[in-house]
Amino acid sequence: MRVGIIGANGYSGIELIRLLHEHPHVTLNLIVSHSTSGTPITELYPHLQAIYEEQLETLDTDKMASQVDLVFFATPARVSKDWLPAFAEKGIQCIDLSGDFRLKDPDVYQQWYKAEHTNPAYLQEVTYGLADVYPEKVRRAHVIANPGCYATAALLGLIPLVEKKLISPESIIIDGKSGTSGAGRKPSLTTLFGEVNENVKAYKLGKHQHIPEMEQVLTEVSEEPIQVTFSTHLIPMTRGIMCTIYADLQEAYSAKDVIHTFESYYDSSPFVRVRPEGTWPSTKEVYGSNYCDLGVTVDERTGKVTIVCVIDNVVKGASGQAVQNMNLLNGWDVDAGLRHSPVYP
Amino acid sequence: MRVGIIGANGYSGIELIRLLHEHPHVTLNLIVSHSTSGTPITELYPHLQAIYEEQLETLDTDKMASQVDLVFFATPARVSKDWLPAFAEKGIQCIDLSGDFRLKDPDVYQQWYKAEHTNPAYLQEVTYGLADVYPEKVRRAHVIANPGCYATAALLGLIPLVEKKLISPESIIIDGKSGTSGAGRKPSLTTLFGEVNENVKAYKLGKHQHIPEMEQVLTEVSEEPIQVTFSTHLIPMTRGIMCTIYADLQEAYSAKDVIHTFESYYDSSPFVRVRPEGTWPSTKEVYGSNYCDLGVTVDERTGKVTIVCVIDNVVKGASGQAVQNMNLLNGWDVDAGLRHSPVYP
Amino acid sequence: MRVGIIGANGYSGIELIRLLHEHPHVTLNLIVSHSTSGTPITELYPHLQAIYEEQLETLDTDKMASQVDLVFFATPARVSKDWLPAFAEKGIQCIDLSGDFRLKDPDVYQQWYKAEHTNPAYLQEVTYGLADVYPEKVRRAHVIANPGCYATAALLGLIPLVEKKLISPESIIIDGKSGTSGAGRKPSLTTLFGEVNENVKAYKLGKHQHIPEMEQVLTEVSEEPIQVTFSTHLIPMTRGIMCTIYADLQEAYSAKDVIHTFESYYDSSPFVRVRPEGTWPSTKEVYGSNYCDLGVTVDERTGKVTIVCVIDNVVKGASGQAVQNMNLLNGWDVDAGLRHSPVYP
Amino acid sequence: MRVGIIGANGYSGIELIRLLHEHPHVTLNLIVSHSTSGTPITELYPHLQAIYEEQLETLDTDKMASQVDLVFFATPARVSKDWLPAFAEKGIQCIDLSGDFRLKDPDVYQQWYKAEHTNPAYLQEVTYGLADVYPEKVRRAHVIANPGCYATAALLGLIPLVEKKLISPESIIIDGKSGTSGAGRKPSLTTLFGEVNENVKAYKLGKHQHIPEMEQVLTEVSEEPIQVTFSTHLIPMTRGIMCTIYADLQEAYSAKDVIHTFESYYDSSPFVRVRPEGTWPSTKEVYGSNYCDLGVTVDERTGKVTIVCVIDNVVKGASGQAVQNMNLLNGWDVDAGLRHSPVYP
Repeated sequence: MRVGIIGANGYSGIELIRLLHEHPHVTLNLIVSHSTSGTPITELYPHLQAIYEEQLETLDTDKMASQVDLVFFATPARVSKDWLPAFAEKGIQCIDLSGDFRLKDPDVYQQWYKAEHTNPAYLQEVTYGLADVYPEKVRRAHVIANPGCYATAALLGLIPLVEKKLISPESIIIDGKSGTSGAGRKPSLTTLFGEVNENVKAYKLGKHQHIPEMEQVLTEVSEEPIQVTFSTHLIPMTRGIMCTIYADLQEAYSAKDVIHTFESYYDSSPFVRVRPEGTWPSTKEVYGSNYCDLGVTVDERTGKVTIVCVIDNVVKGASGQAVQNMNLLNGWDVDAGLRHSPVYP
Repeated sequence: MRVGIIGANGYSGIELIRLLHEHPHVTLNLIVSHSTSGTPITELYPHLQAIYEEQLETLDTDKMASQVDLVFFATPARVSKDWLPAFAEKGIQCIDLSGDFRLKDPDVYQQWYKAEHTNPAYLQEVTYGLADVYPEKVRRAHVIANPGCYATAALLGLIPLVEKKLISPESIIIDGKSGTSGAGRKPSLTTLFGEVNENVKAYKLGKHQHIPEMEQVLTEVSEEPIQVTFSTHLIPMTRGIMCTIYADLQEAYSAKDVIHTFESYYDSSPFVRVRPEGTWPSTKEVYGSNYCDLGVTVDERTGKVTIVCVIDNVVKGASGQAVQNMNLLNGWDVDAGLRHSPVYP
Repeated sequence: MRVGIIGANGYSGIELIRLLHEHPHVTLNLIVSHSTSGTPITELYPHLQAIYEEQLETLDTDKMASQVDLVFFATPARVSKDWLPAFAEKGIQCIDLSGDFRLKDPDVYQQWYKAEHTNPAYLQEVTYGLADVYPEKVRRAHVIANPGCYATAALLGLIPLVEKKLISPESIIIDGKSGTSGAGRKPSLTTLFGEVNENVKAYKLGKHQHIPEMEQVLTEVSEEPIQVTFSTHLIPMTRGIMCTIYADLQEAYSAKDVIHTFESYYDSSPFVRVRPEGTWPSTKEVYGSNYCDLGVTVDERTGKVTIVCVIDNVVKGASGQAVQNMNLLNGWDVDAGLRHSPVYP
Repeated sequence: MRVGIIGANGYSGIELIRLLHEHPHVTLNLIVSHSTSGTPITELYPHLQAIYEEQLETLDTDKMASQVDLVFFATPARVSKDWLPAFAEKGIQCIDLSGDFRLKDPDVYQQWYKAEHTNPAYLQEVTYGLADVYPEKVRRAHVIANPGCYATAALLGLIPLVEKKLISPESIIIDGKSGTSGAGRKPSLTTLFGEVNENVKAYKLGKHQHIPEMEQVLTEVSEEPIQVTFSTHLIPMTRGIMCTIYADLQEAYSAKDVIHTFESYYDSSPFVRVRPEGTWPSTKEVYGSNYCDLGVTVDERTGKVTIVCVIDNVVKGASGQAVQNMNLLNGWDVDAGLRHSPVYP
């Protein structure tokens, strides 16, 4: 199967190159970048020397359609909304790593992404690719909106408890902690080494664009409107997201009950691992891999549950889940090309 | 004034040396360490060359009492409880940076510190030195229990709101994030570079020994029993603590209201700074200094307030606050020897 | 093929587990650890959950010999010298990642490793497994001394120039820079996060035990005695070694000449990559992979050449090269199980 | 005394604010920035809240001349050459932290700084302010070119040995390692956290603009032309420079001899500290302070000496040395406002 990447010069783009390079069923046929077309990818990323040395191309929809069967959009926000439908209509499978097709309501999109959606009708066509929760939906899909990194971590830690009514929906608080790679490779003051190192910084409190995405999914799962309190923190590391999630338990469930709920729910997913009681995962334990690890504490004094959820934001939070979605779309083993162990230490 | 440090070979100990070295009113007369006595401090800490080159001594209560007017205990947990009263009874001012005299109830001490308190009667004699909240109490005190690092950050962000009844007492959640220096200089797997770097790790969820300390103070302030949900996370940096605090607002207060409450409350404290609306502090902004910086968000949709509170755990969370307490005890300017700007970047 | 690891609970040990897990021709049958036998490896390394969950065993030579065809020694210095010959004599292939069998002269071993060698006769039996330089020797071998991490980086950057007589042998200076993982997982003051972070530290100047190993190989290659000046620096990162090598050119060679020499020399090695003129590799560009990347500068003013050489110390500098040696020993593709792209960023 | 800073919004600028804020003899009257004039400095640097909250101003030579007695240029390369003479001619003391007036020969300036010097005649008027070596020259000066960060570290480690003829002038190799703050606060790909973290990167090998500065001084000291081999490496930390210097000894000097040479040479400088034999400084040991620490090894086998030299590049390598020069210029204690202990850990 021939695949292409649009936006191949960003961090998600090159992570796709890494994962696809070792994938048994695909050939990477084309890499596209608007801003750096004409440049060999190795000039931007010397680590690809002897691995993948092609040149970045300009985006030519017709030409690309003739060269690939599936296209990944690893583009910044507000790009794929203008380009994806053309590919999908030509019968090309599309997996969009950006946020442009995640929200069903174009007004909500406009409110959080600060741009009008240019293909609002298309929003209903797209399947939200939270691959460990909706494998069947993804198998039947053609176009996938790959979930946001924070949303992936938070939703995998919340959906089983919301669906099984273990927690009180109005009590959900998500404290997100992320490395800087999620912000991409574009130079900015916020992600300069001198500003990030030896520092923890809270940002976008209550304003992060993954909030409506989480709320849309949780509302659907719980069948009643859910609003979450969500804070994001930049911490001095490159890869990794941890969401520490707090909620009121509906009844006096024990940590064992909650762990059991998670284990049952993710029984058939090879990528979600639940830690034994009394231990919690750290982000390094999933580094470079497609795992999502969960740990649980119940405070019997206060009746609150705390869930610790970690992913590698570049893999499970972006390119790895995209490959997982590609596998599902095409009926391959869900973990084809994704069997990497975490790199530790 | 002649001062001494017991436990001078740990990180709090050498931070005291740094601060006292530049203090206008004191002479550091004696440094004590059980495990490294006989060693010049510069052998353990070459950065002190030409600054302070004395030898660490063994602990001899009588000798020490004749050489110092004030003693800092920068000892690990479960040490000062056996030694401090002897100094206090000789009329020596004592400031204990460990947790041994913070809790009023010896049973609670035993439960959280896993040791019987050997001087339980003395617990009532000691003043809890949260210097920016209780300057008057400290001025009249003789023996000070210096607050814990997490407790300092959390309490400075909570007390005004609890006292003024802005938040619902049973809703308090504190998400703590700390650098590794709080764990001290003793080699351990948990604080090895290879384990901490590129990693965020949740630990002691619901079990941290600063929980009873926070609850004791908040209960006193609110005049009703308060229990908090408290999580701690180790992040890849050396200095700094951030507490992100979540609570339900009692009424529809705005961020401005909450900010105003903080500003009024800390009006006379030179060390607490409140950020303008829409901005939040980062730990680097207090690095190496005795400041505590606060930022606020109100989510009108959910009726919750989020408070971001940062300190340098080694300064305001330990040695800096200890010097501030010394200043108050002796009627000096509260910021004598503590006017360092944060070191940035 | 059945393999075992002795010393599986260290960083090299678990890196072997990662690499062997994805290797097409082997089964990991047994993991041994003296200090942690009886413990499931996942208790020490939760990232292995669902990947490899066996228990660490005690070392029983006979039992082990019946269960494995090849054994990796990932043990600390001064262990394998006592145990390896017993395995080798039973016909088990042995690959020793420690320094115990690298030096041919037992007196030199004693001088640098501060211990008498207990199997000095055996030193001559063992092949020094610098896999990209001596693939043929390794193919014919049975017992391999896997090179040291610094030695691998320095030798791959020096051997072609020494062998081809481009540089003056008495002028060689090697400035080594390493992350902390090379020091292992044993808690120690030197590798505590608080001591390493925001710090560069020179250590063991002129005393590092990889010096005699480098000199032994270079002397053999050049056919005249070579002594090197070697400095080591600990830098705040987990993985990666850079050696910046300085030498006087024998004639007015250009950077192109030197680059061409490297390219010819490593023509048949898939793991050594030479950068184009005017660019130099960084350690991140080989992170998690078995590559060794080289860059060159010639200063025409001073007649000196500078070679920048980077490896991932845990892969090419230890476990990756060990697997490469296993592949050669058994006539498999040299890169079987080693085709990982570097993880970037 | 009234002082002003031009380029106050960069890292050297705000470090000057930190140091001047605690200086006993000066008032900071004016901060200037071309690119951010009109902005309160606290908007760019919230850590200055309650410490220094003035607004950045545009550069108006006449107005500024009436408001200040001394001006620091903390500007990027190629700015002060156009502006400094106007201030100097009005009798304002000038201390230039940029490289514009360090080189005596305008052709050399043009070659390394890629710009024509617009005030070449003025180059002879300016005193090179290597404060620990030339205190007397600085005391008699009016305009100071503050040395480069790498040049400061390398020269303090070389001058005594070159002047006393202990080392062979053509053998000097300097391996420089720096944190990222030296590259300033301007967003760039090279200093993004994701590119610097877990990475060591060699850059500008043989091309760094501090090379001619070192050679100019060493040539003057040795009274014969000296050329050095100089490599620079970016390492994952914010502050700190280490230069590891290699040279051939002229005779069989011991480490003790070399240490003694350093100690005698810097006898009257409070800021240069020489480590005992067998130990070497690390950058953290000077963090936030104006110290320069030196360590020495002699390899008797090869006849080479290795000198390890560390500074905080933002203090001794920039703003601290600038304040030291100000102290000398005005006859104050050389360490006025500079008695900070290193911040450790």
